[in-house]
Amino acid sequence: MPSSLQESSPPASATHRTDVVVIGAGLAGLTAARRLVAAGHSVVVLEARDRVGGRTLNHDLGDGQVVEAGGQFVGPTQNHVLALADELGIGTFPAYAEGASVYVHRGRATRYSGDIPPDLLALPDIGVTTARIARMSRQIPLHAPWEARHARRWDATTLDSWIRGTTLGRGGLDLLNSFLGSAYGATAADASLLFSLHYIAGMGAEGVPGTLDRGIGTKDGAQERRFTGGSQRLSSTMAEQLDGRVVLDSPVRAIEQDDRTVTVRTDSSAWTCRRAVVAVPPALAARIRFSPLLPPEQDALFARLAFGQLMKCEAVYDEPFWRAAGLSGQGVFRAGSTVCSMFDNSPPGGRPGVLMGFLGGRQWRAWAHRPAHERRGAVLRAFAQVVGPEALRPRNYFEQDWTAEEWTRGGPTAIAAPGVLTELGAWRDRPFGRIHWAGAEHADYWNGYMDGAVRSGKDTADTVIEQEG
Amino acid sequence: MPSSLQESSPPASATHRTDVVVIGAGLAGLTAARRLVAAGHSVVVLEARDRVGGRTLNHDLGDGQVVEAGGQFVGPTQNHVLALADELGIGTFPAYAEGASVYVHRGRATRYSGDIPPDLLALPDIGVTTARIARMSRQIPLHAPWEARHARRWDATTLDSWIRGTTLGRGGLDLLNSFLGSAYGATAADASLLFSLHYIAGMGAEGVPGTLDRGIGTKDGAQERRFTGGSQRLSSTMAEQLDGRVVLDSPVRAIEQDDRTVTVRTDSSAWTCRRAVVAVPPALAARIRFSPLLPPEQDALFARLAFGQLMKCEAVYDEPFWRAAGLSGQGVFRAGSTVCSMFDNSPPGGRPGVLMGFLGGRQWRAWAHRPAHERRGAVLRAFAQVVGPEALRPRNYFEQDWTAEEWTRGGPTAIAAPGVLTELGAWRDRPFGRIHWAGAEHADYWNGYMDGAVRSGKDTADTVIEQEG
Repeated sequence: MPSSLQESSPPASATHRTDVVVIGAGLAGLTAARRLVAAGHSVVVLEARDRVGGRTLNHDLGDGQVVEAGGQFVGPTQNHVLALADELGIGTFPAYAEGASVYVHRGRATRYSGDIPPDLLALPDIGVTTARIARMSRQIPLHAPWEARHARRWDATTLDSWIRGTTLGRGGLDLLNSFLGSAYGATAADASLLFSLHYIAGMGAEGVPGTLDRGIGTKDGAQERRFTGGSQRLSSTMAEQLDGRVVLDSPVRAIEQDDRTVTVRTDSSAWTCRRAVVAVPPALAARIRFSPLLPPEQDALFARLAFGQLMKCEAVYDEPFWRAAGLSGQGVFRAGSTVCSMFDNSPPGGRPGVLMGFLGGRQWRAWAHRPAHERRGAVLRAFAQVVGPEALRPRNYFEQDWTAEEWTRGGPTAIAAPGVLTELGAWRDRPFGRIHWAGAEHADYWNGYMDGAVRSGKDTADTVIEQEG
Repeated sequence: MPSSLQESSPPASATHRTDVVVIGAGLAGLTAARRLVAAGHSVVVLEARDRVGGRTLNHDLGDGQVVEAGGQFVGPTQNHVLALADELGIGTFPAYAEGASVYVHRGRATRYSGDIPPDLLALPDIGVTTARIARMSRQIPLHAPWEARHARRWDATTLDSWIRGTTLGRGGLDLLNSFLGSAYGATAADASLLFSLHYIAGMGAEGVPGTLDRGIGTKDGAQERRFTGGSQRLSSTMAEQLDGRVVLDSPVRAIEQDDRTVTVRTDSSAWTCRRAVVAVPPALAARIRFSPLLPPEQDALFARLAFGQLMKCEAVYDEPFWRAAGLSGQGVFRAGSTVCSMFDNSPPGGRPGVLMGFLGGRQWRAWAHRPAHERRGAVLRAFAQVVGPEALRPRNYFEQDWTAEEWTRGGPTAIAAPGVLTELGAWRDRPFGRIHWAGAEHADYWNGYMDGAVRSGKDTADTVIEQEG
């Protein structure tokens, strides 16, 4: 039989009161808080991390320069995050995309321009697939994809299965997987066709149908621009303006509610409020203890909206030497390489020069646990395939592994496996009593993107404001 | 700014010591504990519920009779749970399967014998599909399905997609989905083909290849027998013999470890031990706070090993009136009905008579939230289609909704979506430092079944015993 020891009692906890508690100080939570405060509500934002910004994170390069270690790109039709930046006085600048990009396949690097790599064998398949995806995604009711005429059929299969049935060769699928490595942190085999069509249908805005081209594109696409001072500045500026209402280092463990009140508990404090906005990724929301329990469908949905795996690897050089050689610094690697895709990630002035590569899904799994120096070597060799051997000697190199972060556990966004959307999707945004949901995964347009997070934060705040009168 | 109130401090917590803490008093955890105690280790089993047995649960019918509201069937090759029952002095009896079964399709009931419903249009497809599944499942290395030659291809598609590509009509798929409604709590659209082949390959024992027939079968199959006194008796007898070592009402919230010690925390106590065995479903294990964090792949895998949705509905009659009419009480309903399948679930003597129906997956979602009297009416009407209108007037009716249970959250078992096994499967049973895993989802043979739970509990205990010398 075990022996007993006495342990000191934990510190007494304090109970606070406010109108609304927002859980999570990422773009969605802070946008919601900002809007609620503007409508006259008292608000507290509880953040698990010791910083704001969620999946956006600035990395300090010294000399007042920063580079993004998390979400960073913004482009046309992402009007909500652009409008927020405008309000906050944060400008944008074009991501560097002059000159030729490079496509790497079987160790051979080929220069090209535009967004589609010059894989001659894959081009016909890419054309057919893109056209079919465009036609099918137009049939998706954005607010209820499970109501599409062929929803059940399209949700019973993976994107991979569908593409194999549409194409002749493997090139189209491999190239799509290069994009999905950074967009899903996974492959076409992990995602439902219906989910993918919905994701693409949302790459637009009201009156502007979403297209895959806009999603993968640099010019006129989702990778067109970046935020001056780094994307995390959106969140840190909002947090500053929220003036003491953001409480860091406060992971929320439990949320209780009755007909009139919600109680939000951290390890050391409790907050009672009229409504709560949970603005953390769904899979993390499902790990909060709710009392009463979440409806089983909502719990099952949130748990299934799992993140892919993603790491960003960045190398810093005195200058972006590739530009003089007529290269954009952009590279696309067909399956089997260390990185899925890479970009020139230099600050606006081009001093220093920065190359950034994504290790997503399979690449993450292949490399995340190898010794750091081996991974660094492999990433730099991949960079060198695109911009030449100078890439092997950066003055600095750093990584951000979102998958190892307790409060993200993957990235960049949640992807739905087959069955999830048709069976449980209707529960995604449904308030649970006085508890509301926000976040990039709760958006129809630009789901999983910064714009989706801002949209969702605004929409959820508006719902709370309407309910509270 | 919010106002502050003072809250009373929580009770001081006690710290206990033992060699091994087992988390979860289901079949796996109790089997592991029993084996560890026999090897001379001090053991404590922490159970979140106020009872032992996990997904097995006896329902008291009065007069000393019980019927199972959870896992209940046992059959040939399930040698580990049968051997455990033998050790505990718990007998088995044949599930009632005399007379004709009934197949219900488009409101029409057809009698048949054997395990395959007499759907003439579906039979050729069923024959071809069953033969191909048998051939493919023999290619699955049971301990490492991701190493099958076609693993990646088979894991990139759903079972649904593959069957549609193999069959001519819809009948075979519909019938398989009737089985999967109770086996997966889901449909063929939710599961990876590779996962399903592995699941089927495990429906056997060492030297006896698994077959789908054994899985769906009554005679000579997984539904052949039941435990005298109900399956929960296995757990309650083990708990009695563990004599005070099982602590109920103790949900584990956090597990910390260093090189030498593991600390397991409930809301009111802490246990330090040399090793811990986590014997709860993977998706619930992922909700425990681990420090250090679980490896990201293991966390991602556990979160993705989500349960289907399942409810059991049982009607009690003075006697099993259908037997006299030459009916087994077994019914299979093709897609679209209220229940997926039903069985005669009477106690050994046939007094009273009990009919049991599964609401799994789509049926659960269609009915779980309807008013109880509507659901009862619909279930009884389904029963009446199989055994006649007498079914409409039971003397008692009860339900067990596993999906609404905080400590199960679905049922009967975890199913893997495409991509999960090939990408993350190798992490399923890997100990995390001094933390080990057990449960029906950690078994290769009879994964998700009581036999898998017992096997896994034994295997994990043996690993711990070996490590501790």
